Amino acid sequence: MSAAEVMTPDPQASQAPGAAEPVSFRTDPGKYRHWRLEIDGDVGWLVLDVDPQAGLRPGYELKLNSYDLGVDIEFYDAVQRLRFEHPEVGAVVITSGNDKAFCAGANIRMLATSSHPWKVNFCKFTNETRCGVEDASANSGQRYIAAVNGTASGGGYEIALACDQILLVDDGSAALSLPEAPLLGVLPGTGGLTRLTDKRKVRRDRADVLATKAEGIKGRAAVTWGLADEVIGKSRFGETVAQRARQAAAASPRTARAGQPGVALAPLDPSITADAICYRHVRAALDRQARLVTITVAGPDGDPPGDLHQAGAGFWPLAMTRELDDLILWLRTNEPELGTWMLRTRGDIGALLAHERCLAGAGGDWLAAEIRHYFKRTLKRLDVTSRSLVAVIEPGSCFAGMLLELALACDRQYMLEGTDPAARIVLTSANLGTFPMANGLSRLATRFYGHDDHSERLAAELDRPIEAAEAADLGLVTAALDDIDFEDEVRVVLEERGSLSPDALTGLEANCRFAGPETLETKIFGRLTAWQNWIFSRPNAAGPDGALTRYGTGRKAAFDWKRV
Amino acid sequence: MSAAEVMTPDPQASQAPGAAEPVSFRTDPGKYRHWRLEIDGDVGWLVLDVDPQAGLRPGYELKLNSYDLGVDIEFYDAVQRLRFEHPEVGAVVITSGNDKAFCAGANIRMLATSSHPWKVNFCKFTNETRCGVEDASANSGQRYIAAVNGTASGGGYEIALACDQILLVDDGSAALSLPEAPLLGVLPGTGGLTRLTDKRKVRRDRADVLATKAEGIKGRAAVTWGLADEVIGKSRFGETVAQRARQAAAASPRTARAGQPGVALAPLDPSITADAICYRHVRAALDRQARLVTITVAGPDGDPPGDLHQAGAGFWPLAMTRELDDLILWLRTNEPELGTWMLRTRGDIGALLAHERCLAGAGGDWLAAEIRHYFKRTLKRLDVTSRSLVAVIEPGSCFAGMLLELALACDRQYMLEGTDPAARIVLTSANLGTFPMANGLSRLATRFYGHDDHSERLAAELDRPIEAAEAADLGLVTAALDDIDFEDEVRVVLEERGSLSPDALTGLEANCRFAGPETLETKIFGRLTAWQNWIFSRPNAAGPDGALTRYGTGRKAAFDWKRV
Repeated sequence: MSAAEVMTPDPQASQAPGAAEPVSFRTDPGKYRHWRLEIDGDVGWLVLDVDPQAGLRPGYELKLNSYDLGVDIEFYDAVQRLRFEHPEVGAVVITSGNDKAFCAGANIRMLATSSHPWKVNFCKFTNETRCGVEDASANSGQRYIAAVNGTASGGGYEIALACDQILLVDDGSAALSLPEAPLLGVLPGTGGLTRLTDKRKVRRDRADVLATKAEGIKGRAAVTWGLADEVIGKSRFGETVAQRARQAAAASPRTARAGQPGVALAPLDPSITADAICYRHVRAALDRQARLVTITVAGPDGDPPGDLHQAGAGFWPLAMTRELDDLILWLRTNEPELGTWMLRTRGDIGALLAHERCLAGAGGDWLAAEIRHYFKRTLKRLDVTSRSLVAVIEPGSCFAGMLLELALACDRQYMLEGTDPAARIVLTSANLGTFPMANGLSRLATRFYGHDDHSERLAAELDRPIEAAEAADLGLVTAALDDIDFEDEVRVVLEERGSLSPDALTGLEANCRFAGPETLETKIFGRLTAWQNWIFSRPNAAGPDGALTRYGTGRKAAFDWKRV
Repeated sequence: MSAAEVMTPDPQASQAPGAAEPVSFRTDPGKYRHWRLEIDGDVGWLVLDVDPQAGLRPGYELKLNSYDLGVDIEFYDAVQRLRFEHPEVGAVVITSGNDKAFCAGANIRMLATSSHPWKVNFCKFTNETRCGVEDASANSGQRYIAAVNGTASGGGYEIALACDQILLVDDGSAALSLPEAPLLGVLPGTGGLTRLTDKRKVRRDRADVLATKAEGIKGRAAVTWGLADEVIGKSRFGETVAQRARQAAAASPRTARAGQPGVALAPLDPSITADAICYRHVRAALDRQARLVTITVAGPDGDPPGDLHQAGAGFWPLAMTRELDDLILWLRTNEPELGTWMLRTRGDIGALLAHERCLAGAGGDWLAAEIRHYFKRTLKRLDVTSRSLVAVIEPGSCFAGMLLELALACDRQYMLEGTDPAARIVLTSANLGTFPMANGLSRLATRFYGHDDHSERLAAELDRPIEAAEAADLGLVTAALDDIDFEDEVRVVLEERGSLSPDALTGLEANCRFAGPETLETKIFGRLTAWQNWIFSRPNAAGPDGALTRYGTGRKAAFDWKRV
């Protein structure tokens, strides 16, 4: 790029159209504006019926069941609640309550008027939610069925692609389409291309045809090509969908839980000020000058409860995970300039490990499993967070077992050496695969990728305190430093980190964090997302004459034809 | 991105600084300005000694053995010639003839003053060359040793990372570094990050430290961290390198070929006019109005030679591959606006298959193997080419076996049906794995990824002509069309393709072409490259106040601190 061929920030350009209020991810079905969550025995119904006037930001209308971040926040909330509050639900049907469309995807005016960081952050969250749907199916036995009762375009079809089954109405007009490239000059960026070829095994030339054909594919061809599982005449559609849902629910292990109570996810109520966000177990201190957030996670107080179901949302692992999840989402969306997160823990390691045993020992208990998977998903959110993550391990910290995963998710770990009492970490079986990363490996296995002998050695070092010098020897921390050097070194690291190009750090971290194998999920977050980010920053999409900007104006995009 | 936060093309910005002459990739050791290729028995020496004044374009000096595309074109040529012209060479040492540095990486002024497409295309070619070094080692028994006799920074260290062994001099100053992020606000984009974690198995936090530490790591720490294999005192360095090279050569199967003559790669001499590029077997017709290139590959005339060594560079598979390789490089670099390549073949299928049998039947013959691997690499180049690829299959075409791979590399295949004589394709065993893609699968296996039963069925359909209707039934072509529809349909497809956003198509194709598994190579081309492209297009790197632009001016970069 020549020096002149660059983006100049518009001083009036805000994070999103009319950005003002920070975005909260805390909601519940009683507050939904865009979705209806209905439970019918062992089948859950998620009905998308977007209120066009209730966009999260002014400046666009959510026509044809198109969505913005606000719509997706409700979707995420519903998927979470289905797992925790409805243990009896074995199948979930996603369908449309709009008589004109199943879902038209991400709202184009919203995208066209949003800043680059907003678009990227929005896509990341929607990707996490789609992967969350697949996680519910794979790990919670909650099968998702897309009942596509009208045209599903772009992100609309990508919601369907995240489901186990896609049932398409055959009404002569309902089509499946990915019109992003032909209409907007961008990619289907919510996993669509990867799920077409890698999940649904659609032939690559057909994927190419679909993704360049604005009007999409309908009827039988959609099934022949593998875009849908079944195409169903209009008159039989409702009945067939209900039947497929009942069949899926009956085949789910969840159905055996009929009558079991769920765990209500009571509202979180953090105190939020200009420089701190405080939940019960998780706190964040914001240093805007240093562009630094210090996140402190507190371990549990006292003994684990006798009955975790009775403890419910108050059970420390669940409560802490919900708070951490909410904090990550808040900071990512509302505090983009705070580029480094320092992670600390504090608490009693013994109490933490007792809680962890309670979670693991609960064996087949569905709630224990849900909590483990939820903490796994929250750690994965950290893995794909575009912030530098630095763990600081000191006396009184509580980086053991499941909380040690927080340190292992960080780009670096600094540990204080030679104090009395000493800083300690503890490896447990929870570090050996309970919380796999998107690449399918534990954070420990990723850290020691290709060093299987060392990984085996570590597996023999469980359940005992490891002090700093040994932790460094075992490769578990980046550096062990005595108290003369520790504070200085950490300060220098944070200052240095805070001085580097935020974009280069994002790219660097996105590559270094994921050694080894790739999966559908890493392909979506690593490959597809990176290409989309690039395209989003190119004038052919987002420039004044770009396709995304000009969509709906009646003027065709003016492209720079050079292939890059 | 807001509408105003965009890149506006500079009418004076050219492809590269002072772009004028098209770039030719045809060279030979007699013409090298920057490398010396010396053969000493079974060891080849590649000595980098860049002429600072001989940059490919004006406007920068290639100090400290830094490189531009011109330097890399010679590197590529040398790696190729070592395989074909030096069958006796079992080990290659890459070292520096510059007394101040091993290699300072890609020249920064060159990067800072180049257009975005130029930077991306430059990185793609350098990546292909680095992967080519690894291919020579893996498939040709030619082991590469980096004799790092001075500081290797950025792309300089990335050259070393592509080698089998990295020997670092311990002279108190020579360091290994990846200073792109701290100094330039970009990534080590020639595979460095991926090779650190996935090839050399460097711990992710150490990779993070290295890639943010401008001065790098030297001495023993480089070996402890896995950045180098051996650190050697200055006085013993030359002798130890020579010894390691002799050991590697002795262990290579190539050494058994001492005394065998190589095959000289005689100069290619295409005729190049404004609208055509013609080699002996490969031709390209350029339609600038339609932004379309029609590439026609002719099959061999007559019978294969009795002795392929005697035929040498004139042997059709080698001659055709060299021409196609050169054409791809020429078009990619010099014709970025011609966004669609239509691939045709013509010739006698029987003669082609006879040549293919000669190549396969030669069994352990080193030259036959080299030609197969070279055609494989050329097909891989096509796979990562950012142009839409459309195969057109008509009567008289020659899409059989190895040339059918050209069609399978395309995004779509259109076949004419119902004529007399009929258009025909032929599957052979060459389509079942002789020419794997970067993902490790054949193009056929990638096309039918997840449909193993169908792949097995196809394996029973070898060595017989398949006409259009059956080819469509077997999923080998996108569409079979009779002569009433064929011409119209192909015209519409090409026109439509030519109207879409070039960036969206690049991202779309980069995703659809690689279903299934990922490898070091797909991670480099798919994940790392996409992040680098994004960063290259961001103002924090390439804007007027960006780190890349301001490097060396004494002014610090001014960053937009928002994390994206």
